[in-house]
Amino acid sequence: MSEIIELCRRAREASYALAAASRATKDAALHAMAAALRANADRIVTANAHDVTAAREAGTPESTVDRLALDRGRVDAMAAGLEQLAGLVDPVGEVVRGYTLPNGLELRQVRVPFGVVGIIYEARPNVTADAAGICLKSGNAVLLRGSSSAASSNAEIVAVLRDAVVEAGLPADVIQGVPGDRAAVKELMQARGLVDVLIPRGGAGLIRTVVSESTVPVIETGVGNCHVYVDADADLDLALTILLNSKTQRPSVCNAAESLLVHATVADEFLAAALPALADAGVTVHGDDKVVALGKDVVPATDEDHAAEYNSLDLSAAVVDSLDGAVEHIRKYSSGHTDAIITRSQAASRRFVQAVDSAAVVVNASTRFTDGGEYGFGAEIGISTQKLHARGPMGLPEMTSTKYVVIGEGQIRT
Amino acid sequence: MSEIIELCRRAREASYALAAASRATKDAALHAMAAALRANADRIVTANAHDVTAAREAGTPESTVDRLALDRGRVDAMAAGLEQLAGLVDPVGEVVRGYTLPNGLELRQVRVPFGVVGIIYEARPNVTADAAGICLKSGNAVLLRGSSSAASSNAEIVAVLRDAVVEAGLPADVIQGVPGDRAAVKELMQARGLVDVLIPRGGAGLIRTVVSESTVPVIETGVGNCHVYVDADADLDLALTILLNSKTQRPSVCNAAESLLVHATVADEFLAAALPALADAGVTVHGDDKVVALGKDVVPATDEDHAAEYNSLDLSAAVVDSLDGAVEHIRKYSSGHTDAIITRSQAASRRFVQAVDSAAVVVNASTRFTDGGEYGFGAEIGISTQKLHARGPMGLPEMTSTKYVVIGEGQIRT
Repeated sequence: MSEIIELCRRAREASYALAAASRATKDAALHAMAAALRANADRIVTANAHDVTAAREAGTPESTVDRLALDRGRVDAMAAGLEQLAGLVDPVGEVVRGYTLPNGLELRQVRVPFGVVGIIYEARPNVTADAAGICLKSGNAVLLRGSSSAASSNAEIVAVLRDAVVEAGLPADVIQGVPGDRAAVKELMQARGLVDVLIPRGGAGLIRTVVSESTVPVIETGVGNCHVYVDADADLDLALTILLNSKTQRPSVCNAAESLLVHATVADEFLAAALPALADAGVTVHGDDKVVALGKDVVPATDEDHAAEYNSLDLSAAVVDSLDGAVEHIRKYSSGHTDAIITRSQAASRRFVQAVDSAAVVVNASTRFTDGGEYGFGAEIGISTQKLHARGPMGLPEMTSTKYVVIGEGQIRT
Repeated sequence: MSEIIELCRRAREASYALAAASRATKDAALHAMAAALRANADRIVTANAHDVTAAREAGTPESTVDRLALDRGRVDAMAAGLEQLAGLVDPVGEVVRGYTLPNGLELRQVRVPFGVVGIIYEARPNVTADAAGICLKSGNAVLLRGSSSAASSNAEIVAVLRDAVVEAGLPADVIQGVPGDRAAVKELMQARGLVDVLIPRGGAGLIRTVVSESTVPVIETGVGNCHVYVDADADLDLALTILLNSKTQRPSVCNAAESLLVHATVADEFLAAALPALADAGVTVHGDDKVVALGKDVVPATDEDHAAEYNSLDLSAAVVDSLDGAVEHIRKYSSGHTDAIITRSQAASRRFVQAVDSAAVVVNASTRFTDGGEYGFGAEIGISTQKLHARGPMGLPEMTSTKYVVIGEGQIRT
């Protein structure tokens, strides 16, 4: 048996004890994990220093090195995240629906853990603790495959967390790191039946690879080409405030706006104010012919621009003749993450909400709110941009399946 | 552009109108579809006669020919099924959760159609009308790929249904048959982004092919190796009644029992009554050593027997030393469809329900109840044996995704 298959089997075996664990046991484990991170902060920071040195030697950009680097403060934040998880409601056991059938059978649909979850992620080592915590609270054994650039940090964090869960009376194998090369990851992606779901967290390339190479079911996360559409009936001051916030408040994240659409009847007035304001904020606008004609610093947009997730201070922009024109543009280019309309019209907002098929459709607010924390979930494993199982920010309930429990007193079918 | 891609694009385009259609429009379409099936019953029966003749000429077993054959009565039953769908609640628009965030944003999670659904199925041409109806009611455009042995029947049914939806004001392309050879089906399975979900309905071979060859997300349905476990604390008369019903009431279906487990302390007494009763009912028992020792007609069971979905009057049987032994056996061999315990013990039932991770876990009742109709769903597209998205019988809500609708008045993130 290969090392990866052996790992998966151990995770499956450990998952049975975790699935049966009470909330009290799981919360005790989360507190033990947090305490262990704090107690071993020096060990973790030292291991991380190896990764940081290696990254710098390999010529990694300083912004990426910053994402990789841990200090005591960041380790403390990881611990605090685990303690926060302990305060959240346990999704396992929640009765999703329940009633008594005409023949007296009592039917309940109950949340249960998936069993074994694989997380494949890039860079930030804090994901190791976050994902381990979310999986533990939702009753799932987890296989963690981080970036090779964070291998020392992740190995240390996993070792610390494994010791802590054992202290709390759970098997160490509910948390495991996945070692090995790309072939090992490939084997993980093919471990259908042993791994219940894979969640890739990272760039579009990583997600594409996992989706195309996995036979294990995958939940896609995180690619965001989010639109802000300024309707004919928009409050234009409000529209500009929302656009600037959506684009510039944190340009590197998936819920930042990447595309602006403006209704033709307000395009002159809105863009006369918006283009200088965007320029002041350091934003480069890639516009269609109409937008180019209205602003001196606008770069002509290609088809790729309209489809791009820049993750930078760039914005594609187009003028549309109607709300339906905006919907058509969004259907063509949106990644289905978050799309917003700015309007005072009830009819326009209703039509936009119905017609735009994205994980989040927003009226008169920033696209930046699509986030498990903002939605009040208390924890987030990622933002699903697929339609199956979970869509939008995924909290603890999204990390569960369900089963039907049917209680009778001898009922048979006739 | 290939014919299949063109078909998918037309389905996507048509899906927009269907997603926006009111329940009244969809119900009118379902009634029009039912009326059209009845009005064109002769045409459909004639087309079916070609398939039946070809099947007989190819030496198809008479039981399979019976599944394929349509008469006016069966066409009428298809029509009645569509009328029943019209009476069900529309899942689209249901608010799954909703609240107001601290910043005043109104958040709602709302059911929306998937968009485009592909159904790949075998034999019975009635699935063509059933699946078309369920997809239409849940707001999804459907691509129907039936068995080539039912090609004439399916083509005629699809033509009749397409005309009917147009009458009701919906685009014909919300219902399409998928023509062509295996290469066409392969293309359908690879149409990620154009098709939102594929649902295979048929034997284990079909399901394995679709799962392994698709990049489109798949919902697995229907393989059932269901267990009946007779606990030490079972009412043995009740256990025998339930066992016989689970095994013999309809042996060819996925929720029929295929495996019997008996606790050692009641094995002698229970099997002394059960083995003759099973033999009287025509059931061949494939038992482990202990079962073989207790019955004269028991065939020794192989590992394959314990894993088998017989779909026939065969039953594997084993004696276990404890409830945990039963759980372990089920974890090893069950297909995760439906597993039942017969017991008077509250503790045993609680432990079994917690530890057995199947779509349905049953206490003191027949396995045969795992069914959308029995569960009160009013319609069923299949029984999911996977953990992602839907598990167990899938009704109309399971044929939807959700989106978050966020309504504000200028909220930005700070």
